Amino acid sequence: MSDQPLTEAEIELALSELPGWSHVGNHLEATWTFDGHLHALAAATAVGLLNERRNHHADLAINYDKLRVTTTTHSAGHQVSAKDTDLARAISDLLD
Amino acid sequence: MSDQPLTEAEIELALSELPGWSHVGNHLEATWTFDGHLHALAAATAVGLLNERRNHHADLAINYDKLRVTTTTHSAGHQVSAKDTDLARAISDLLD
Repeated sequence: MSDQPLTEAEIELALSELPGWSHVGNHLEATWTFDGHLHALAAATAVGLLNERRNHHADLAINYDKLRVTTTTHSAGHQVSAKDTDLARAISDLLD
Repeated sequence: MSDQPLTEAEIELALSELPGWSHVGNHLEATWTFDGHLHALAAATAVGLLNERRNHHADLAINYDKLRVTTTTHSAGHQVSAKDTDLARAISDLLD
Protein backbone atom coordinates (compact mmCIF):
# COMPACT_ATOMS: atom_id res chain seq x y z
CA MET A 1 0.00 0.00 0.00
CA SER A 2 1.26 3.42 -0.98
CA ASP A 3 2.63 5.64 1.72
CA GLN A 4 2.47 8.75 -0.48
CA PRO A 5 0.58 11.62 1.15
CA LEU A 6 -3.05 11.86 0.09
CA THR A 7 -4.43 15.14 -1.20
CA GLU A 8 -6.98 17.00 0.92
CA ALA A 9 -9.68 15.98 -1.59
CA GLU A 10 -8.68 12.32 -1.32
CA ILE A 11 -8.77 12.50 2.47
CA GLU A 12 -12.19 14.16 2.45
CA LEU A 13 -13.51 11.48 0.11
CA ALA A 14 -12.21 8.73 2.38
CA LEU A 15 -13.62 10.42 5.50
CA SER A 16 -17.07 10.64 3.89
CA GLU A 17 -17.22 6.89 4.39
CA LEU A 18 -15.63 6.91 7.85
CA PRO A 19 -18.13 8.31 10.37
CA GLY A 20 -16.46 9.53 13.55
CA TRP A 21 -13.04 10.08 11.98
CA SER A 22 -11.59 13.58 11.58
CA HIS A 23 -8.55 15.00 9.83
CA VAL A 24 -6.81 16.97 12.55
CA GLY A 25 -3.42 18.54 11.88
CA ASN A 26 -1.41 15.85 10.12
CA HIS A 27 -3.30 12.80 11.34
CA LEU A 28 -6.66 11.06 11.36
CA GLU A 29 -8.35 10.60 14.72
CA ALA A 30 -11.47 9.09 16.23
CA THR A 31 -12.69 8.47 19.79
CA TRP A 32 -14.93 5.73 21.12
CA THR A 33 -16.66 5.57 24.49
CA PHE A 34 -17.21 2.13 25.96
CA ASP A 35 -19.02 0.57 28.86
CA GLY A 36 -16.21 1.05 31.38
CA HIS A 37 -12.43 0.91 31.55
CA LEU A 38 -11.97 -2.80 30.90
CA HIS A 39 -13.96 -2.60 27.70
CA ALA A 40 -11.80 0.32 26.54
CA LEU A 41 -8.68 -1.73 27.32
CA ALA A 42 -9.99 -4.68 25.34
CA ALA A 43 -10.78 -2.41 22.39
CA ALA A 44 -7.27 -0.93 22.53
CA THR A 45 -5.79 -4.42 22.45
CA ALA A 46 -7.91 -5.31 19.43
CA VAL A 47 -6.86 -2.16 17.57
CA GLY A 48 -3.27 -2.92 18.50
CA LEU A 49 -3.56 -6.32 16.85
CA LEU A 50 -4.73 -4.59 13.66
CA ASN A 51 -1.79 -2.20 13.96
CA GLU A 52 0.65 -5.04 14.30
CA ARG A 53 -0.80 -7.08 11.46
CA ARG A 54 -0.51 -4.13 9.06
CA ASN A 55 2.82 -2.99 10.50
CA HIS A 56 1.25 0.47 10.71
CA HIS A 57 0.84 1.58 14.28
CA ALA A 58 -1.86 4.05 15.26
CA ASP A 59 -1.38 5.76 18.61
CA LEU A 60 -3.82 4.69 21.33
CA ALA A 61 -4.93 6.80 24.30
CA ILE A 62 -7.12 5.27 26.99
CA ASN A 63 -8.89 7.61 29.42
CA TYR A 64 -11.18 5.59 31.67
CA ASP A 65 -13.94 4.48 29.29
CA LYS A 66 -12.64 6.28 26.21
CA LEU A 67 -10.23 5.16 23.50
CA ARG A 68 -8.77 7.77 21.15
CA VAL A 69 -6.99 6.50 18.06
CA THR A 70 -4.70 8.70 15.97
CA THR A 71 -2.86 7.63 12.84
CA THR A 72 -0.35 9.30 10.55
CA THR A 73 2.31 7.99 8.17
CA HIS A 74 5.83 8.79 9.30
CA SER A 75 7.33 7.62 5.99
CA ALA A 76 5.05 10.09 4.18
CA GLY A 77 6.58 13.00 6.09
CA HIS A 78 4.01 12.67 8.90
CA GLN A 79 1.12 13.16 6.49
CA VAL A 80 -2.02 11.10 5.97
CA SER A 81 -1.60 8.32 3.42
CA ALA A 82 -3.74 5.43 2.20
CA LYS A 83 -2.19 3.39 5.01
CA ASP A 84 -4.07 5.61 7.46
CA THR A 85 -7.44 5.60 5.69
CA ASP A 86 -7.16 1.84 5.25
CA LEU A 87 -6.33 1.31 8.93
CA ALA A 88 -9.15 3.67 9.96
CA ARG A 89 -11.58 1.61 7.89
CA ALA A 90 -10.43 -1.63 9.52
CA ILE A 91 -10.69 -0.13 13.01
CA SER A 92 -14.21 1.15 12.34
CA ASP A 93 -15.19 -2.27 10.97
CA LEU A 94 -14.00 -3.70 14.29
CA LEU A 95 -15.40 -1.15 16.77
CA ASP A 96 -18.51 0.41 15.24
CA MET B 1 -7.06 6.23 50.93
CA SER B 2 -7.12 10.00 51.20
CA ASP B 3 -7.77 12.00 48.09
CA GLN B 4 -6.51 15.22 49.67
CA PRO B 5 -3.84 16.97 47.59
CA LEU B 6 -0.31 16.19 48.71
CA THR B 7 2.13 19.01 49.38
CA GLU B 8 5.08 19.46 47.03
CA ALA B 9 7.36 18.11 49.77
CA GLU B 10 5.20 15.01 50.19
CA ILE B 11 5.23 14.44 46.43
CA GLU B 12 9.01 14.83 46.24
CA LEU B 13 9.44 12.37 49.09
CA ALA B 14 7.23 9.82 47.35
CA LEU B 15 9.02 10.32 44.02
CA SER B 16 12.39 9.71 45.66
CA GLU B 17 11.26 6.08 45.91
CA LEU B 18 9.68 5.97 42.45
CA PRO B 19 12.41 5.96 39.79
CA GLY B 20 11.13 7.04 36.39
CA TRP B 21 8.15 8.97 37.71
CA SER B 22 7.94 12.75 37.39
CA HIS B 23 5.61 15.40 38.75
CA VAL B 24 4.53 17.29 35.63
CA GLY B 25 1.89 19.98 35.89
CA ASN B 26 -0.88 18.51 38.03
CA HIS B 27 -0.13 14.82 37.49
CA LEU B 28 2.47 12.11 37.92
CA GLU B 29 3.79 10.48 34.78
CA ALA B 30 6.18 7.77 33.66
CA THR B 31 7.01 6.13 30.34
CA TRP B 32 8.18 2.60 29.62
CA THR B 33 9.67 1.25 26.40
CA PHE B 34 9.00 -2.41 25.64
CA ASP B 35 10.08 -5.01 23.14
CA GLY B 36 7.52 -4.11 20.50
CA HIS B 37 3.90 -3.02 20.23
CA LEU B 38 2.25 -6.17 21.56
CA HIS B 39 4.31 -6.04 24.72
CA ALA B 40 3.28 -2.40 25.24
CA LEU B 41 -0.37 -3.41 24.77
CA ALA B 42 -0.04 -6.19 27.31
CA ALA B 43 1.55 -3.80 29.79
CA ALA B 44 -1.29 -1.29 29.27
CA THR B 45 -3.83 -4.01 29.96
CA ALA B 46 -2.03 -4.97 33.15
CA VAL B 47 -1.91 -1.36 34.35
CA GLY B 48 -5.59 -1.04 33.46
CA LEU B 49 -6.38 -3.95 35.73
CA LEU B 50 -4.60 -2.16 38.58
CA ASN B 51 -6.59 0.99 37.72
CA GLU B 52 -9.83 -0.90 37.86
CA ARG B 53 -9.04 -2.72 41.06
CA ARG B 54 -8.28 0.55 42.85
CA ASN B 55 -11.08 2.43 41.13
CA HIS B 56 -8.47 5.05 40.31
CA HIS B 57 -7.84 5.28 36.61
CA ALA B 58 -4.51 6.48 35.28
CA ASP B 59 -4.50 7.57 31.64
CA LEU B 60 -2.64 5.28 29.27
CA ALA B 61 -1.00 6.29 25.99
CA ILE B 62 0.49 3.65 23.71
CA ASN B 63 2.83 4.77 20.94
CA TYR B 64 4.24 1.71 19.18
CA ASP B 65 6.57 0.21 21.82
CA LYS B 66 6.05 2.91 24.46
CA LEU B 67 3.50 3.17 27.25
CA ARG B 68 3.06 6.51 29.00
CA VAL B 69 1.06 6.51 32.23
CA THR B 70 -0.30 9.71 33.79
CA THR B 71 -2.29 9.91 37.00
CA THR B 72 -4.05 12.71 38.83
CA THR B 73 -6.90 12.84 41.33
CA HIS B 74 -10.00 14.52 39.94
CA SER B 75 -11.68 14.56 43.35
CA ALA B 76 -8.66 16.44 44.74
CA GLY B 77 -9.18 19.25 42.25
CA HIS B 78 -6.96 17.56 39.67
CA GLN B 79 -4.02 17.52 42.03
CA VAL B 80 -1.71 14.71 43.05
CA SER B 81 -2.95 12.76 46.07
CA ALA B 82 -1.87 9.60 47.90
CA LYS B 83 -4.07 7.69 45.46
CA ASP B 84 -1.63 8.67 42.71
CA THR B 85 1.58 7.89 44.55
CA ASP B 86 0.08 4.58 45.68
CA LEU B 87 -0.98 3.67 42.15
CA ALA B 88 2.42 4.73 40.78
CA ARG B 89 4.09 2.40 43.28
CA ALA B 90 1.88 -0.51 42.27
CA ILE B 91 2.52 0.12 38.56
CA SER B 92 6.28 0.27 39.09
CA ASP B 93 6.13 -2.96 41.11
CA LEU B 94 4.42 -4.52 38.09
CA LEU B 95 6.49 -3.11 35.22
CA ASP B 96 9.99 -2.37 36.51
